[in-house]
Amino acid sequence: MINGRKLLNGAYIDHDIVIQQDRLDDPLQTCLLGKFVEGKHVYRQTFIIRSYEIGPDKTATMETWMNLLQETALNHVTSSGLAGNGFGATREMSLRKLMWVVTRIHIQVERYSCWGDIVEIDTWVDAAGKNGMRRDWIIRDYYTKEIITKATSTWVIMNRETRKLCKIPPQVRQEVLPFYSTRLAIAKEDNDVEKIDKLTDDTAERIRSGLAPRWNDMDANQHVNNVKYIGWILESVPILVLQDYNLTSMTLEYRRECRQSNLLESLTNSTTATKNKLKAELEYTHLLRMQADKAEIVLARSEWKPKQIKHKSSS
Amino acid sequence: MINGRKLLNGAYIDHDIVIQQDRLDDPLQTCLLGKFVEGKHVYRQTFIIRSYEIGPDKTATMETWMNLLQETALNHVTSSGLAGNGFGATREMSLRKLMWVVTRIHIQVERYSCWGDIVEIDTWVDAAGKNGMRRDWIIRDYYTKEIITKATSTWVIMNRETRKLCKIPPQVRQEVLPFYSTRLAIAKEDNDVEKIDKLTDDTAERIRSGLAPRWNDMDANQHVNNVKYIGWILESVPILVLQDYNLTSMTLEYRRECRQSNLLESLTNSTTATKNKLKAELEYTHLLRMQADKAEIVLARSEWKPKQIKHKSSS
Repeated sequence: MINGRKLLNGAYIDHDIVIQQDRLDDPLQTCLLGKFVEGKHVYRQTFIIRSYEIGPDKTATMETWMNLLQETALNHVTSSGLAGNGFGATREMSLRKLMWVVTRIHIQVERYSCWGDIVEIDTWVDAAGKNGMRRDWIIRDYYTKEIITKATSTWVIMNRETRKLCKIPPQVRQEVLPFYSTRLAIAKEDNDVEKIDKLTDDTAERIRSGLAPRWNDMDANQHVNNVKYIGWILESVPILVLQDYNLTSMTLEYRRECRQSNLLESLTNSTTATKNKLKAELEYTHLLRMQADKAEIVLARSEWKPKQIKHKSSS
Repeated sequence: MINGRKLLNGAYIDHDIVIQQDRLDDPLQTCLLGKFVEGKHVYRQTFIIRSYEIGPDKTATMETWMNLLQETALNHVTSSGLAGNGFGATREMSLRKLMWVVTRIHIQVERYSCWGDIVEIDTWVDAAGKNGMRRDWIIRDYYTKEIITKATSTWVIMNRETRKLCKIPPQVRQEVLPFYSTRLAIAKEDNDVEKIDKLTDDTAERIRSGLAPRWNDMDANQHVNNVKYIGWILESVPILVLQDYNLTSMTLEYRRECRQSNLLESLTNSTTATKNKLKAELEYTHLLRMQADKAEIVLARSEWKPKQIKHKSSS
């Protein structure tokens, strides 16, 4: 009995699992949901890039990659048999009203796939310090197996009701431990662990105000979906950069939740690429904050490379 | 030789088709792309509802349904072997720089599926008068085969360069004719063919101004994706309605294209349900227009029913 609701929660969870087990034999389910490979250590799912997941230049967008990473992560939890009644929470977490929240994500994009391309996404988790979890992903082209995107992220546990961070309870650690894998999607020396400079009204070159989350920007946890932040961050990037450059790398540092009523402000500064000056042609620092009290929601860094010139007319 | 580019376009098209034929044997391709059933008259594709396709109440949204309908329609064209180099255009259309544009769509939603549910979408086309095409869809639950959504739409042909509507060239009619089917997703007497009243500043009860398309709201045809309009239309619907009612029916009448630079205004009026007073608990009329010159982009009608009370806690 935890929070006096064990029975109710337990029944609810069992009901869901029964339904899924019934249907796991269906090959369609495997194809649409994904499967474990290499023991229980890597979860793999394939996706076809849909027409509404491509941007004006007819390739997948950063939001699309991030959506697919989220989807793979959630299906990983569901397929592990650990899923509680929350969004990616394990059973022991649900009993305690706990949820995962992402604190940092770093993604490196080699290229963006086209409409109809099939990609294969691998994901796995590992411990990150005492109270965190690391989740990595690799996106490959399904046919050529070429790595097209790599990403790594850090997650901590939050209480759904108090909205406070807390330690990983030993029961939760016991649940996830068998799935841990120490491999790294992004080698230590290539990871972006540098501090992201904070922007202010005085230092920001570009500020875009009045950004309003829409009703459908809310996720099942009743706050703004993490991926939606990217669209607002890009709103303060010069349009010529959006048109002529590819977003090749992004680091997001999540600071605070955002709900529907909050008006947002997006700030951007061009910065000198410190570490990989030759690698990145453009580098920006971003801040997404509440408009009213200037509270920080996300800090971000982005790197951009010129798009390749298209040789055939793509009208 | 049409527009002096037949050779270039021909080569480009053949190249695409060769690549696809190579991979059509892959069962994954069929599972992810869909297939013809009942001869060549119905195209069927299955989808699993993804985590980022559900709204705050954890079910698919109207935008999700519309996105999946669009995806099925485009894959229908691709799988028919007719695809040119455009977005849903046939080969004979591509040669003439023509594209399909939707003028009206009517959708009736019985219910919205949940994250992880699998749906099966059937689509087919038929002639609509002399110069139009009708496209219908049915969404079923993959396991129970229960019909959960029905939709019908009217399409005409536009020149990509002059942006003017034109007749269906005989060569295009020849291409699509073998695929025509006279069946109806929505019976004639249940279809919404009534005129949508135009709203003005004087008649509209609710006006929401300053809606700004984002960079990623653009589609591959370089204008605002049709489905995105729905989000803006809903921005002028009272939030209590969005929270407590399900959008059970929508009719959209597209008037004009919209590009990224245009600021939009969303107008809404509650109307008396004339035809099905008992069926619909709430009915609204909407107008999405340019903010600067008040030019109409979309007229719409929506019907709403109270959400069913949830018996289990869905925290």
